[in-house]
Amino acid sequence: MATPLPRDVNAHSEAIRRLYGAVRSQTLALCAGLSDADATAQSMPDASPAKWHLAHTTWFFETMVLAVHAPGYQPFDARFGFLFNSYYETLGARHARPKRGLLTRPSLDEVERYRSHIDAAMERLLEAPMTAALLALIELGCHHEQQHQELLLTDILHLFAENPLHPAYAPARRGPRPARQASSLAYSTYDGGLVDIGHAGPGFAFDCEGPRHPQVRPAFRLANRCVTNREWLEFMADGGYTTPLLWLSDGWTEVQRQGWRGPLYWWQEDEAHFHMTLHGAEPLDPDAPVCHVSYFEADAFATWAGARLPTEGEWESVAQAQGCEGNFADSGVLQPMPAAGPSHAPQQLFGDVWEWTRSAFSPYPGFRPSADAVGEYNGKFMSGQYVLRGGSCATPAGHIRATYRNFFKPDARWQFAGVRLAKDA
Amino acid sequence: MATPLPRDVNAHSEAIRRLYGAVRSQTLALCAGLSDADATAQSMPDASPAKWHLAHTTWFFETMVLAVHAPGYQPFDARFGFLFNSYYETLGARHARPKRGLLTRPSLDEVERYRSHIDAAMERLLEAPMTAALLALIELGCHHEQQHQELLLTDILHLFAENPLHPAYAPARRGPRPARQASSLAYSTYDGGLVDIGHAGPGFAFDCEGPRHPQVRPAFRLANRCVTNREWLEFMADGGYTTPLLWLSDGWTEVQRQGWRGPLYWWQEDEAHFHMTLHGAEPLDPDAPVCHVSYFEADAFATWAGARLPTEGEWESVAQAQGCEGNFADSGVLQPMPAAGPSHAPQQLFGDVWEWTRSAFSPYPGFRPSADAVGEYNGKFMSGQYVLRGGSCATPAGHIRATYRNFFKPDARWQFAGVRLAKDA
Amino acid sequence: MATPLPRDVNAHSEAIRRLYGAVRSQTLALCAGLSDADATAQSMPDASPAKWHLAHTTWFFETMVLAVHAPGYQPFDARFGFLFNSYYETLGARHARPKRGLLTRPSLDEVERYRSHIDAAMERLLEAPMTAALLALIELGCHHEQQHQELLLTDILHLFAENPLHPAYAPARRGPRPARQASSLAYSTYDGGLVDIGHAGPGFAFDCEGPRHPQVRPAFRLANRCVTNREWLEFMADGGYTTPLLWLSDGWTEVQRQGWRGPLYWWQEDEAHFHMTLHGAEPLDPDAPVCHVSYFEADAFATWAGARLPTEGEWESVAQAQGCEGNFADSGVLQPMPAAGPSHAPQQLFGDVWEWTRSAFSPYPGFRPSADAVGEYNGKFMSGQYVLRGGSCATPAGHIRATYRNFFKPDARWQFAGVRLAKDA
Amino acid sequence: MATPLPRDVNAHSEAIRRLYGAVRSQTLALCAGLSDADATAQSMPDASPAKWHLAHTTWFFETMVLAVHAPGYQPFDARFGFLFNSYYETLGARHARPKRGLLTRPSLDEVERYRSHIDAAMERLLEAPMTAALLALIELGCHHEQQHQELLLTDILHLFAENPLHPAYAPARRGPRPARQASSLAYSTYDGGLVDIGHAGPGFAFDCEGPRHPQVRPAFRLANRCVTNREWLEFMADGGYTTPLLWLSDGWTEVQRQGWRGPLYWWQEDEAHFHMTLHGAEPLDPDAPVCHVSYFEADAFATWAGARLPTEGEWESVAQAQGCEGNFADSGVLQPMPAAGPSHAPQQLFGDVWEWTRSAFSPYPGFRPSADAVGEYNGKFMSGQYVLRGGSCATPAGHIRATYRNFFKPDARWQFAGVRLAKDA
Repeated sequence: MATPLPRDVNAHSEAIRRLYGAVRSQTLALCAGLSDADATAQSMPDASPAKWHLAHTTWFFETMVLAVHAPGYQPFDARFGFLFNSYYETLGARHARPKRGLLTRPSLDEVERYRSHIDAAMERLLEAPMTAALLALIELGCHHEQQHQELLLTDILHLFAENPLHPAYAPARRGPRPARQASSLAYSTYDGGLVDIGHAGPGFAFDCEGPRHPQVRPAFRLANRCVTNREWLEFMADGGYTTPLLWLSDGWTEVQRQGWRGPLYWWQEDEAHFHMTLHGAEPLDPDAPVCHVSYFEADAFATWAGARLPTEGEWESVAQAQGCEGNFADSGVLQPMPAAGPSHAPQQLFGDVWEWTRSAFSPYPGFRPSADAVGEYNGKFMSGQYVLRGGSCATPAGHIRATYRNFFKPDARWQFAGVRLAKDA
Repeated sequence: MATPLPRDVNAHSEAIRRLYGAVRSQTLALCAGLSDADATAQSMPDASPAKWHLAHTTWFFETMVLAVHAPGYQPFDARFGFLFNSYYETLGARHARPKRGLLTRPSLDEVERYRSHIDAAMERLLEAPMTAALLALIELGCHHEQQHQELLLTDILHLFAENPLHPAYAPARRGPRPARQASSLAYSTYDGGLVDIGHAGPGFAFDCEGPRHPQVRPAFRLANRCVTNREWLEFMADGGYTTPLLWLSDGWTEVQRQGWRGPLYWWQEDEAHFHMTLHGAEPLDPDAPVCHVSYFEADAFATWAGARLPTEGEWESVAQAQGCEGNFADSGVLQPMPAAGPSHAPQQLFGDVWEWTRSAFSPYPGFRPSADAVGEYNGKFMSGQYVLRGGSCATPAGHIRATYRNFFKPDARWQFAGVRLAKDA
Repeated sequence: MATPLPRDVNAHSEAIRRLYGAVRSQTLALCAGLSDADATAQSMPDASPAKWHLAHTTWFFETMVLAVHAPGYQPFDARFGFLFNSYYETLGARHARPKRGLLTRPSLDEVERYRSHIDAAMERLLEAPMTAALLALIELGCHHEQQHQELLLTDILHLFAENPLHPAYAPARRGPRPARQASSLAYSTYDGGLVDIGHAGPGFAFDCEGPRHPQVRPAFRLANRCVTNREWLEFMADGGYTTPLLWLSDGWTEVQRQGWRGPLYWWQEDEAHFHMTLHGAEPLDPDAPVCHVSYFEADAFATWAGARLPTEGEWESVAQAQGCEGNFADSGVLQPMPAAGPSHAPQQLFGDVWEWTRSAFSPYPGFRPSADAVGEYNGKFMSGQYVLRGGSCATPAGHIRATYRNFFKPDARWQFAGVRLAKDA
Repeated sequence: MATPLPRDVNAHSEAIRRLYGAVRSQTLALCAGLSDADATAQSMPDASPAKWHLAHTTWFFETMVLAVHAPGYQPFDARFGFLFNSYYETLGARHARPKRGLLTRPSLDEVERYRSHIDAAMERLLEAPMTAALLALIELGCHHEQQHQELLLTDILHLFAENPLHPAYAPARRGPRPARQASSLAYSTYDGGLVDIGHAGPGFAFDCEGPRHPQVRPAFRLANRCVTNREWLEFMADGGYTTPLLWLSDGWTEVQRQGWRGPLYWWQEDEAHFHMTLHGAEPLDPDAPVCHVSYFEADAFATWAGARLPTEGEWESVAQAQGCEGNFADSGVLQPMPAAGPSHAPQQLFGDVWEWTRSAFSPYPGFRPSADAVGEYNGKFMSGQYVLRGGSCATPAGHIRATYRNFFKPDARWQFAGVRLAKDA
């Protein structure tokens, strides 16, 4: 991660303590409605069981923090290191990822006891004076756990979508849906020039968000809002999924191999379109942003629309200028909603759907991963992935910032990912 | 199934009522120690979750019996038909087999309510007078459920064996292990001649066990007991798994593809051998029958030993003459045990491990499956499978009989299957 | 192979010399119309290049005969052993089967020089006195080569069928097609009883054809002719390929996995049906026997027709009684033709299409493979295969006999395999 | 492609005529030593048969030029369009790529007749006056064919490397190898600043080489020469292929899946290292540049060496300043050779091995593919690929330029690709 600038250590320490408590409670709260079985199942190799998320984020603190920094710390269960390491090669052998759903033991109850055990030890540690480096490590652990909070939601949605009974993770909304209409699509124009991109403290950021550096930004135009479900239905009706010329070569291969005919979680009954959400099956809202599309689909849509996806530099330079305004405060509604109202300026850059950019996830000039285990965090994924920006309805508020670089493979669809169009000026 | 001979309908009706109650309770009892998650997970496409076994056997009665024969019966949940049909093409679309482990809902509790609901309806039905055909159908449902009782155990063992924590399904035995020594290997000789093979009432049998028909049996010899773990270790030490000439061509392909180096569930720590059992991880008992080997391994072992596997006709003709004597009464011990004592006659033909025969599972002369849904029961599996005879420590006592034809693909290893050798006379 | 009965060694020696010459010339003759590229390509792992067949059959004589029995024999090229061993584990490492088509060198010309070299050495050997065992080995090599003659034709057909240009292996027939009409389908009834099955000299047979042994044959009925293309079209029109209940479970899996909608090599243009043959693309003759169907298709057709496939014992007992009468003399026509005329007795048991039986390929009682390399010939394939009987339009006349057991996996379709129906009496 | 600047049309026309003739002869010349079988076989889906390269490049002229611009042109064979279209979705259905090796017909001879036929028609066309657009299209066709010239060599090498006989494509060099020693590894430092990158006429370039645009280049250092085989052996000896921390996550997956232990085509006999080359099997020259490594290997090596790969902008900015100096004139030697002599400035940026950059292949700002069929040329491959720069010993001299962007997937190893290291300043 980026080295934090010097801060008042006491204040920082107190802030981290509060952060730690808030994050850890929130993860548990997210699992409140899950049964032992819900929390154990794994619906595909890319997804993990909720129980695994609960345990892995805990293992991070146990292994990276307590085992190293808490004198005399005894592990809760020596076998958990093997079970709950995700991918840290430095930290030894680990359970095969596609088999995480077979771990019916330890039970959800026992994993919660594991969390309590680690939380107690962490609280003891947090009461004592700490180095800035240790504080930074714990802060990283909190942000790591927040990333898993979002994954926990996307993974549960994927699991429940596989169930013909369409169980709801979150209660259906009471009262009628907000009958908002999407703004008309419009573009703002931005001049070309040198822009500074990337994180430079203060405040937490992941290592891959820096170093801050200048880029040449061409003049370009950016859409005021994300593509809506209504527009996506037009794309489908116009042969979007059957016209190879709209697609990247690898994208067209996936269309055929996976039989894509629309976004993930969509289906049709007679004339009506439905989709699976964290609130269960729902009719499609044509004015809401399209969600659960892959990079390949986003790119094909843009080609069809005579536009293109923005680069991450274009996106960030606009976001920096504009500040964070999203609907992520509306945390009870875990699905993308129509934008708040008509505007020609880019709206809701944050907090509704992650926005695919055309930028491959690659190191910024001067990027160098840490030499220790946390150095495996981001750098080793810098091939074959595309950057997404903004944040979704499932993203913790603390992860909403202009420099945040989310990344997924171009065929991934189970994230809350949508599309904002751009054009050359 | 074979048409039952005429019996006293009242007595038969009462017997079926008792059978129904006993079988249904026993299935539930087998799940007493399982958590919701244990009962939900699926460790491979060939295995099913315990919850699925509980529900599928119930669905059989609901769909085949109640929906047809109970006037005004209302299904417990109309969506369960899709979820819990196994492979009956006549009964409509069904949930994909490899995805059974994703059904975290309905929960284990709800599946138990489903069972209670069906049991109540069945009990009402069973109180009224019934035709012989309906009684036969219910009897078939009970035997079907007993088959799933054994599968439930083999599938749970497979799941728990995937867990690095090695959870035990059944409590470890109290007290010391019985220190029995295996008998010396010896062969009895049987004359050649015509023998009658197959089921001919009275009593229940599956359709594939008949018609009874004559076969020419060559003179041959049959071993007094099954191959032991000690003998299997000798085979391994003598290069059994690295000598292609011992293997069938397809078997050698599997050895290489799957990396077989010993029976399923075995591992070595330093010099000692262990295996995973329903009682958890245990040291290997060298005198116990080898278990969890495939047909290919059984055949290779026989070749190495200068012997061969028996045909199912050879096996059955000896078993008929001898009657059922096994250790299946010892139901608290769910793993193969050393044979009771020295003898030169074939011992324990029943109830320890299923014994692979060299007979492909094929129809007896005159076999004709039923025309209705239960006709999909056995006939459609008559390709690519080998017959096993006898029954294992996990087989319900009611399934121990000389004519019973169990069958699995030649690479299957998760059943309680072992080896009895034969030779030409 | 079966031990030959004592014969006059000189006469035998002369017969083998003639056989050797005839077989070797015939193999070359079969390749006369092939280019270097035709002879090199491999269209699937189960098929081999013609050049490989030419070389492998030669390698058999070089390795099994000359290297052992010709004093001072020098191999033509020491590296060919690696290239042209098929599957003999006793004879060392070998080139990977699916990569045979990458051996553009040695060229077809050089392989023909290899053949000449071996033929010259063999002729020298054959001039000297030989033991009966050596003669038997050479005879086996000739029959082995004849098996490859048929495979060479089936493999070339598969290759050419992959080519959109539909090249013809053999010239199209001159003059009009024989406008024969298939006989009406009729069944002959055979009594039950004991029958002797299997080879018992004199004359050559492969090891798996013996020992001769008694079987109980049930009373049954056998069709007078094979199923025709016309009848297969009716099966297709009646939903044969879309009705799962007609199929074995594994068969239905293959239908879906491979997308079968008709026999291999068939296609439709507007209303007309065509198929690819060794004479190139041709319109389908509705009266000719259906060909290029798998066991699974044969079984499904029989179920649809209210019949079943014969066992190999049933088939052989009828064939023994009837003697060899086929149309295999018509050797210029390398495709199945309509039967010669109306008859109620089984016709053309030989020489038109191989006939699938319902018998799994398994050892006869008392079968024991040879202990040396040729012992790998048949026994190691005795799992997962079904027996075919009779012989096809591509079978060398010398391989047409009542006891011959051909065998293939139940999903194989590229052989000249068809269907003769049977019924219980 | 980039729109050519206005030039003297007559002079241009004459230049294109000469280019056409030279390119077409050169392609044929490259096949002079290949047999019909050599030219037909396909060793993997990513490679194509030489015959296919010969025909496909010809099909390009027939379909894009003659069919559109030559009045009354009759296709040589109407079926060739299906056979020899590579991936142009606008131009209809086409033969499946992995099955190109099954096209034993048309023969190599007939494909050469196809080439003559098209050449004759093209020459007639080229004699008449032409628009600048048509000239540009023919020029593109020539450059397209030159790309296939290199692929033809890489594909033949891959095919011959699969052959245990190790055939040589080109004759072994006469006389002793040049006993050059590689220069010491040294780095030149370059200042940061704005640099212009990309093609801006005059002269031919592919569409993806433009538009020319400014980039911010950070200060950095670039190695004077490529990594040598000797250095790669050190990497291997130091556990390069068994240390996961050196690798990108996807790279480590490939190491394990494909069992990489060294560059493609390398093997060891006792202590000595050999590799397969176009001149047949040869001992490894420790001073020659390493070749046939993937992006993943290049990146792991750089990490091991405490360096990184250059970006394509860094590379191009140095190459522009330096001009084209390579050893590509030495065209008789089709393998990378030790650099010419000691120097601290970057040497041999061109013509020895392609140099992997860390830049994903993505569109330059303002890039827009053509709307017609040739628009499918580069843009649709802009996902999942990395850019290589420079050119190899197998690259036609006309393709050696500072702006040329070659691209391959990060696991591709059969190209002549090596590694030049860079470092942050």
